[in-house]
Formats: sequence, structure tokens, C-alpha cells
Amino acid sequence: MMVSLNSDMGEAFGIHSFGNDDALVALIDTANVACGFHAGDPTGIRETVEKALAGGVTVGAHPGLPDLVGFGRREMKLFPDEAADIVRYQVGALVGFLKAQGAQLDHIKPHGSLYGMAARDAELAEAITAVAGDYGVPVFGIPNSEHEKAANKLGVPFVAEFYVDLKYTADGGLIVARRPHATPVDEAIERARRALTDGIATAVTGEEFPIRVDSICVHSDTPNAVEIATAVRAVLSSVGAAA
Amino acid sequence: MMVSLNSDMGEAFGIHSFGNDDALVALIDTANVACGFHAGDPTGIRETVEKALAGGVTVGAHPGLPDLVGFGRREMKLFPDEAADIVRYQVGALVGFLKAQGAQLDHIKPHGSLYGMAARDAELAEAITAVAGDYGVPVFGIPNSEHEKAANKLGVPFVAEFYVDLKYTADGGLIVARRPHATPVDEAIERARRALTDGIATAVTGEEFPIRVDSICVHSDTPNAVEIATAVRAVLSSVGAAA
Amino acid sequence: MMVSLNSDMGEAFGIHSFGNDDALVALIDTANVACGFHAGDPTGIRETVEKALAGGVTVGAHPGLPDLVGFGRREMKLFPDEAADIVRYQVGALVGFLKAQGAQLDHIKPHGSLYGMAARDAELAEAITAVAGDYGVPVFGIPNSEHEKAANKLGVPFVAEFYVDLKYTADGGLIVARRPHATPVDEAIERARRALTDGIATAVTGEEFPIRVDSICVHSDTPNAVEIATAVRAVLSSVGAAA
Amino acid sequence: MMVSLNSDMGEAFGIHSFGNDDALVALIDTANVACGFHAGDPTGIRETVEKALAGGVTVGAHPGLPDLVGFGRREMKLFPDEAADIVRYQVGALVGFLKAQGAQLDHIKPHGSLYGMAARDAELAEAITAVAGDYGVPVFGIPNSEHEKAANKLGVPFVAEFYVDLKYTADGGLIVARRPHATPVDEAIERARRALTDGIATAVTGEEFPIRVDSICVHSDTPNAVEIATAVRAVLSSVGAAA
Repeated sequence: MMVSLNSDMGEAFGIHSFGNDDALVALIDTANVACGFHAGDPTGIRETVEKALAGGVTVGAHPGLPDLVGFGRREMKLFPDEAADIVRYQVGALVGFLKAQGAQLDHIKPHGSLYGMAARDAELAEAITAVAGDYGVPVFGIPNSEHEKAANKLGVPFVAEFYVDLKYTADGGLIVARRPHATPVDEAIERARRALTDGIATAVTGEEFPIRVDSICVHSDTPNAVEIATAVRAVLSSVGAAA
Repeated sequence: MMVSLNSDMGEAFGIHSFGNDDALVALIDTANVACGFHAGDPTGIRETVEKALAGGVTVGAHPGLPDLVGFGRREMKLFPDEAADIVRYQVGALVGFLKAQGAQLDHIKPHGSLYGMAARDAELAEAITAVAGDYGVPVFGIPNSEHEKAANKLGVPFVAEFYVDLKYTADGGLIVARRPHATPVDEAIERARRALTDGIATAVTGEEFPIRVDSICVHSDTPNAVEIATAVRAVLSSVGAAA
Repeated sequence: MMVSLNSDMGEAFGIHSFGNDDALVALIDTANVACGFHAGDPTGIRETVEKALAGGVTVGAHPGLPDLVGFGRREMKLFPDEAADIVRYQVGALVGFLKAQGAQLDHIKPHGSLYGMAARDAELAEAITAVAGDYGVPVFGIPNSEHEKAANKLGVPFVAEFYVDLKYTADGGLIVARRPHATPVDEAIERARRALTDGIATAVTGEEFPIRVDSICVHSDTPNAVEIATAVRAVLSSVGAAA
Repeated sequence: MMVSLNSDMGEAFGIHSFGNDDALVALIDTANVACGFHAGDPTGIRETVEKALAGGVTVGAHPGLPDLVGFGRREMKLFPDEAADIVRYQVGALVGFLKAQGAQLDHIKPHGSLYGMAARDAELAEAITAVAGDYGVPVFGIPNSEHEKAANKLGVPFVAEFYVDLKYTADGGLIVARRPHATPVDEAIERARRALTDGIATAVTGEEFPIRVDSICVHSDTPNAVEIATAVRAVLSSVGAAA
């Protein structure tokens, strides 16, 4: 069993820096690169792609809702077609920068509220997952969600993600905060170990539930993201799951 | 000698319709499709690509400056790298929609002030023309400009455009208006015929100058665009230059 | 009983014209002027304010969700504070243009989905209605909604609107379409007359329900807006309710 | 002679923090608050206004070019009317937040490239300075520039600024960098002392030129902004010019 470590990258915007990209690139296997709608501008996207590839990290697309101020974390009511168009636009834009480097797209992972919407809304999930089908790449998402069902229906590979720095509801749903808080490193380690060895996660309300883990995500904007990524990588190695 | 007829398309924005795309698609050979920075939104871009391809019209990218309010017609001081990044982002986004239709990018034609900037600024012209080199497609531009020199230097095919609905300076420069006016059809016909048969254009100040024509552009937002495109197509046929 | 006729104005964006402002300004009493987030750019807002005031039409603010592509008609999940900030920003911007003309703000009417959200969400309605309180102007909204309750609670005058060009649910809710359709003029006349004389409206499902009318709104982007506004104005006169 | 200390504030954008506002508010006399076009979102503007007023700092408007990615530091060709409309929109928006706090606008200081354009272009300077005239507040700018001439012509008070963290050309022009570098504190102290006591500044090319100082600006995004502001405040006190 190989479990990758992924992180969002390129979520700066113009002069506004963001996250811990420089440090994380040495710790992760694959990056979800912001594509301009929730964060990321053309020059920043190019620089992020160059940085990731130079660090031996594969690049996936991280398309978000068209809401810079809300950082793609404010839900919007979109028609499924509109959501697909928004994803296709952003993925294409990112692929343009990959093409310039002779690199291939690794995967598509929707950002923020679009990620949550894809987990709950079957029609929307199908519409945006179809874009990954056109590119022949997997989608990243919440296991057992509408997103995974859509991927299975369309024959698109689905990478089940586990978050060590977010809280879960008892039915396996993610609680996405508008602004992240630091997660104690020992907690992150324990969550990763439990999920990887026992296939079990614990809800914020205390219930345990089964979880499948193909990739672990560390948010680049969690204040102690580098510390957490380092710790999670060690766990992955210790259980023999490092990619 | 084959001379194509091209027009900008997809310059609507959200609920705001624009231009005469439905009528022009039956008259032109190739479309320059707006890519989102000066006009065009993801859904509109998809619909425009579908419309053009359904009409047998090839699709080029029409990337603009990041200025929706100014419609890309307000010059901005950009570093050459920034300009290239802006072009690469938008071209990639458009190519995403072409890919979904199994179609190829035909060419790249910068929009509005970016088009004019590329004609005058060698460094900027090289930077953005390099994107076309990566895609292996020609660029459209003003003959004998820095844009053409950059293309020649980079080995990128250059398609020399002639405008029947814009005014020229005596040195072959275009006078781009913020908002277009109708051009009398007989004037447009005379300009097209003169350029195609004699290789001569007339400046707004009266001087004649030599012009090379690989493609004639009709602006979709010129009020009588359809009438002009129809007339120009007839001229192309009559001189045996219709593509 | 005086019932005013209002219409949205200034919903153009840059080069993209919109609606029937020039014709409607002669027919309406007060205009809801777009403030830049769902439509309207600074120059367009100034021109609209000048046009309205020159036509003897009072000017209210028409703030929308920050979504140009969606024209403010795609619901977004906002914190009440955020919604208030968005409204305050836009109202202030419009008031800047009124100040330059020595004119006063007449009212605040949220646009599109923000209008609908204010009708259903008490906290949000209070937050944005408080802005009108600061300016000492009334808010326009759906009668008997959370929006009206919030206005009553805060002591802000509430102007109950009736729409002759939209459909209603049986509980008095509005069905807001992403793109408007033409309403037959005789239907609009009948709806206006019924509402004004009997205080009764009819839902799309056939039920009649009581309606209070302080102002009738005609959408500027309804294809036959001018015809409808003319007809409604005649109805207002005939029942002695013209302002 | 009273010389104030001013700094830009509120140049964060959504989730992206920026500058050293919390520390600077205790050191400065007046803040130039970003208004949304080059930086600043409605909620951030409100919070900045509240923070400044709570710290006893007066609030001026800091309107910028409509270019979030370029942070208003990429010159754009605007008609004077457009520039005035952009300023009026942003100033009005900020005044909306001041009104909610019962506070008055202190001044208007254009940001970035708009500041530089106002210094060099008489027509543009007049157009945007007229907005300050409507509000009865001074404008901040470069002494002896077209901006000051426009203010004098319109009877608008002009506050001559001196920058201790930017370089000057020999004719008194500012060299605005896209991204600021740290200025050695002893250099900043020496520049402030020389300007305040002798009325002399030194160009990057070595020439000395006379300078008038009504206010000293410290950029909030200069890496050592707090250190510099502290040092400049001490200089102001030592020469008896502290406001």
C-alpha cells in the first residue's frame, strides 16, 4: 500500500504571499496548484509549477469557485454545466504552464467549497469529474461521497484523501473552516497512524468511522504545516506506506 | 494566394451579450475567441467554441489584458514575463475547451492593447510569441511590426492581418478606438480590393503605404459587422483569394 | 395611496450595454442603480446617476453579490457581517457619485440573489438593513418576508414591492430566473390592476394570496420592459395611485 | 512646523494578510486605507477603519488602479474622466465605512502607479484632485509635481510627502518599485533629519535637491516598516515637528 502526501500550492495572489510552498515542496509527493479563481495569478502559477517540478513533485490542478475575496470557501449555487466550465477553464490554464515545462497533469482536486459541493451533489460531481475523464487523470476527494460515486460511474480513478488537520463529522464529512487553525503535531501523527494502520478516523463528536486513505493532505496554510507534513511523512515511512 | 477572413468571437460576458457571433460564424474562416481576461467567461467560451466548430470555423486564442471594464483596450505596463504568463494562462484555458471537442488550436492573436503593444515592443512581442511556438501555431499581427520580427526570430509563422474597419497611421500602425464605429461598406470593399490586388493601404492622413495581407479581420462589434464581412468575403472570391 | 414605479438601472458593464435605461428613465419614479459587484463600473455608474437625476428620477442603491459573471443571481453563503460589508461598500460608492451631483440617496434595494437571501434569512436581513438605517433611507423588499421583519425591528422604513414580470410561489416568494423572459403586456396590466385594486396576486401554481404594494418594479432587462413600464404607469394613473 | 507620519493600511485581500497594520497604528498620525481596487475587500476595509479609529489614527482614502494582481503598480492608460470615476467610487466606498463609525474622511492619497501618474499628467491630476475638492479634504502627493499644480489650481489643500523608504530621481521624482526592499534604519533616519532640518533630499544618482515635507510616509509593506516608523517618529520629536 502506497499512500501519497499532497498539499495545496500556489495559493498566493499577486504581491500577497501565502502558505509554506518552499518548505512543503521538499516533503510532499504531489501538489494541488491553485488555478486563478480562488487564488493564484498567471505569474504565480508559472512559478509554482516550476518550483514543484524542480522539487520532483507532480502537479495536479486545484480549481476553485470564482471568489478571490472568499478564497473559494463561500459556497455558490452553480449549474452543473457552469461548474464543469469553471473547472475546465482552470485546468486548461494550468495545463498550459505544464506544457511549457514538458510536464503532464497528475490529477484534479477541487478546492474549498467546490470540493465539499462535489462530495454532496451527484450532478455537480459528475459534471466536474468528467473533465478529469477528458484528461485521463484521477480526481482527489472524500471517500464514499457523491464525488467518489461519480468517479466510479464515469470510470475515472478516485484517490481517497484523509485530512490530519481538519475535523470530520460522524458520517465522514469534512468540516471546512474559512481560516485554518494549527493542529497539534501529536494529534496529527495519531490521526495519520490510526487511519493508515486501522482504517479508522474519529469524528469531532467522538464517533469512530472507517476511512480509506490513498493520499494524506496537509493544508499549506495551516500555521504549522511544515511541522505536520514532516511528522506525517515519518508516519508514512514507519508504516511502510511512503510513496 | 489564399487570404482568410477572421473575426473576434466570444466577447460576451456573463449575461451581457456582445457582437454578431451567430451571423459571423457563417461568413468567416477562423475565429479569435476571447479567453476571459478582457471578455469571455468559462461558459461563454465553451459555447463559442462549440458554435465555431459546428460552423466549420477554426478556433484561435484571443488573449487580452486583465481588464474587463476596459475590455483590454487600456494599455498596461507589463513585464514581458508577465505578458507571456497572461497569454499562456488564457491560451491554455481555451485549449481546455478545444480538447473537450477533439479540436486543435489554430492560432494566437492578442487582443486590443496587447495587440498594439506587441507591434511596438520587441521584448514583449518575443515573450508572448514564444507561447505560440510552444503550441506550434502561427500568430496574427500587424505586418512589419516588432510582432512580426519576433515571430521571424523565433521561427513562428506570422499571419499578416489587414483591417477594413480601422484607420491606419502613415507608418502602417493601427489606430485602435475604445469603441468601434460603423465603417461604410463601400469603403471597406474598396480598402479590401486595393490591399488584395495592389498591396496598398491608405493612412488616415492620406498617404499610401504597402501592405501584405494574409488574413482580413472584421471586428464582431463593429455595428455593421455582418454586412462588412459579407462584402469582404465577396471581394475575396472575386479576386480569387477566398480560403 | 401612492405607488411608485421603480426599475433597475446602470447594469451595463464596461463596453457591454444592458437594459433599456434611456427609455425607462422617462417612465419610472425611482431607479435602483447597480453599484459594481454584480454589474456597473465606475464610469457607467456616474453616467447612470447623471441620466437618472437629469430625468427627474430619484436614485437608490442596488448592491449585489460579488459575482460579475453570474450577475449576482448565483446564491453565495455569506456571513451576515460580510453581507453588510458588501452592501456598505457599494452603497458608499454610489453615494459618492450622488454627492458629486448634490443629490441624496433615496433607498437601498438588494439585487438578485441577495434580495432573495434577505427575504429568507433573518440574520442576513438585519445586517444589511442596518446599513439603510445608517443612511436614514428605506429598503425595498418582498412584503411579509424576513427582510420586512428586520426593517420593522430596526425601525427602517420598508417599501413593499410587487413584480409584474416575475412569477410568485403560493407563499408570496419570488421565483428569480437567471435570465428574464418577456411578459405579455396584458398579463402585466392585469397583475398590476389586481394587486393595486384588490390587493391580490396569483401564484404560478394558481393560488391567490394577499399582496401589499408600495412600489411596482419593472426589470430593465425584460425584453419588453419599456412596453410593460408604459402599461403599468397607465394602470397606476387609472387607479389614482401614480406617485 | 508640524509634520505628520502616514502609512498605507488595509492592503490585505481576503484571506491574504499584508503589511504591519497592527504595529503601525500605534506609530502613525494618519492612515491611507486601501479601497478595494488594488487591494482591500469590504470586510477588511471595515476592520481597518475600526482599527485605525480605535488607535486614534485619522483615515484617508488610498484609491488605486483596478488591478488586484499588479497591486496597482502597473501603469494603465486611463482617460482623466475614468480616473476620476475610479477614485470617486473608491473614496465613496471608504466613506461609507467611516460614516458607520461617525468619522470623517481626512484626505485622499492615490496609490502606486496612480500616484505617479497624477504627479506627471496635469489633466489626470486635475480630474482626480477634483474629487478631494468635493469632499473638502486635502490630497497627498509629490511636491512641485503636476499633482500639486492641479491642487493649487483647484484650491484643494496639498500635503507634500517625503518618503524615507523609496529612492528619488534628481528632479524629485519617486522611483516606485513593484516590490519593496528593506531600507537601513540609519539611512531612513538620516534622510528624515536632512529633509526636516535642511529641506534637502538626495537623488539615487547623488544630486541633492530641495524638498518640502508636510508628511512622511512609511510603507506598511517595507519589511522593516515598524522599525523605520519608530525611528522616524523619534526624528520628528527631536526636531520638534511631531504632529
